[in-house]
Amino acid sequence: MALPTFHDVERAAARLTGIVRETPIQTARRLDAASQATVFLKCENFQRVGAFKFRGAYNAVAQRPSSKPVVALSSGNHAQGIALACRLTGKEAHLVMPEPVNPVKQAAVRDYGGIVHVPADPQDADSFSRALVQELHGEWIEAFNDPDVIAGQGTAALELLGHVPDLDVLLGPIGGGGLLSGTCLAAHGLNPKIQVYACEPAGALDALYSVKENRIVPQEDPQTIAEGLRTSVGTLTLPILRKHLTGFFVVEEEEILAAMRFIYERLKLVIEPAGAVAVAPLLRHEPALQGKRVGVIISGGNVDLSRYFDELSNGMA
Amino acid sequence: MALPTFHDVERAAARLTGIVRETPIQTARRLDAASQATVFLKCENFQRVGAFKFRGAYNAVAQRPSSKPVVALSSGNHAQGIALACRLTGKEAHLVMPEPVNPVKQAAVRDYGGIVHVPADPQDADSFSRALVQELHGEWIEAFNDPDVIAGQGTAALELLGHVPDLDVLLGPIGGGGLLSGTCLAAHGLNPKIQVYACEPAGALDALYSVKENRIVPQEDPQTIAEGLRTSVGTLTLPILRKHLTGFFVVEEEEILAAMRFIYERLKLVIEPAGAVAVAPLLRHEPALQGKRVGVIISGGNVDLSRYFDELSNGMA
Repeated sequence: MALPTFHDVERAAARLTGIVRETPIQTARRLDAASQATVFLKCENFQRVGAFKFRGAYNAVAQRPSSKPVVALSSGNHAQGIALACRLTGKEAHLVMPEPVNPVKQAAVRDYGGIVHVPADPQDADSFSRALVQELHGEWIEAFNDPDVIAGQGTAALELLGHVPDLDVLLGPIGGGGLLSGTCLAAHGLNPKIQVYACEPAGALDALYSVKENRIVPQEDPQTIAEGLRTSVGTLTLPILRKHLTGFFVVEEEEILAAMRFIYERLKLVIEPAGAVAVAPLLRHEPALQGKRVGVIISGGNVDLSRYFDELSNGMA
Repeated sequence: MALPTFHDVERAAARLTGIVRETPIQTARRLDAASQATVFLKCENFQRVGAFKFRGAYNAVAQRPSSKPVVALSSGNHAQGIALACRLTGKEAHLVMPEPVNPVKQAAVRDYGGIVHVPADPQDADSFSRALVQELHGEWIEAFNDPDVIAGQGTAALELLGHVPDLDVLLGPIGGGGLLSGTCLAAHGLNPKIQVYACEPAGALDALYSVKENRIVPQEDPQTIAEGLRTSVGTLTLPILRKHLTGFFVVEEEEILAAMRFIYERLKLVIEPAGAVAVAPLLRHEPALQGKRVGVIISGGNVDLSRYFDELSNGMA
């Protein structure tokens, strides 16, 4: 597969106009004061399905043959993105969601008209998915290692830079690298001088090693609250990351939680842990960010708050 | 004291320009679908100090004699608003915060440079405050029963209607009535046809009876999670409310919690229970709101999330 380019991101942006939400860019004195930088948060937690993943999913779904059902493997935001994109384009969506399945996410996928498949053996989800593609004569859309998905994810940074062109640095969380690859393409297509840093949990540190060693270092036994970041990079994202990334910021779990809490309590935004991963380097005053104009892609806001509300509810009874 | 007018709200808006944050107006397909209305949320949770209260506090503080210290009685958002307003205008702020004091709110007031006083007897906070005003030769600023405070609170609705002039209905939560009175003045100064409804918890139903009976029905033993709404209306807010309000929506505690949860999980906004009080009538499909263009003043986002984050933190350890 050919690597996607800046022009693919631009074409994706045209395709997504009126379909994706142009999410707000939040600024806050409190965050600027705490980080000693000028920060612009691209709030993809306000995106449809609650995460940037809808951008890539729609961009890929819209370009596949119209008659074929779509198959995807995801327990999270990609599944919701594919399901909604298929509903909007009149396609059938089959989502392979291995155990342990979050019932809220499964219900959300079904609400969008998606057909949920739970493989009997979660270790076998890949071959289960391949068999399903064959059986349905379906189109397979990978969560990040797909040129159309990568180009779609890049449209978040493209929108941000359209409003704030003079950023010095862009930050985003890294899992499979779809968001970061697209962000790199968008940023450097507009301005090669923008520095792009990947933010990765110390407990799931495969992307950093993959980029260093120029091979896909598998993610084994990841230990992080940022569940969206527990995957390895792919054959398409790795070369883009190697070419474009300025570097990595590695963040500890306590930093993720502290950043999440800061954003909830001070900025009043519900964000998922992966989104907080990209805020954490600002709060610890990374020298590369001091005094800079920094854009942050807040990946999403899909987080399980049921225990919080159950407790509030019990407190009332 | 003379009642404030629409012109006072306009003057307040001029005074507050560049000082208060012009908060974003959020829309969401999910909320429109769930409510069968077209909804515009004026997000005062993004306001400085995390609540609309900063508007009224600053408008009042800025008009008091410059040499005098300011005294206010509040355990909540009004205290923070006064403290920040005094810092910005170079005044001394004395905040009487009766027990039980929320340590987070006390710390926030001190961060803004406010001096915190905790009366020995919480039942005696009023006379304690009066004594403090005398002792300091201070200026007393009431949380809602003050013409400058009311005019300041009205600027939130003024901003909302500046962007969305063709609203049919405005909703806001009611405690002492400062926000609602200001909202009424702003709305009817621009368009006498806009309907303004007060939203009140069934467990703290004094404002409805006060307006009905044209006397201040005291709020005794309020039972609601919406702590900002546990106060009685005042001598200034009551006549404004009687003149302008279309009616009341009374909401149950479960409805407040369900609305809060909807806003967190679907719209990704951190709001306080009082803010959810004004969303609840939409989610139960009040006939007066169906098919209408409805503006909602989301009062603020100051809510205690420490237990949620403590649990997340414990889950990681």
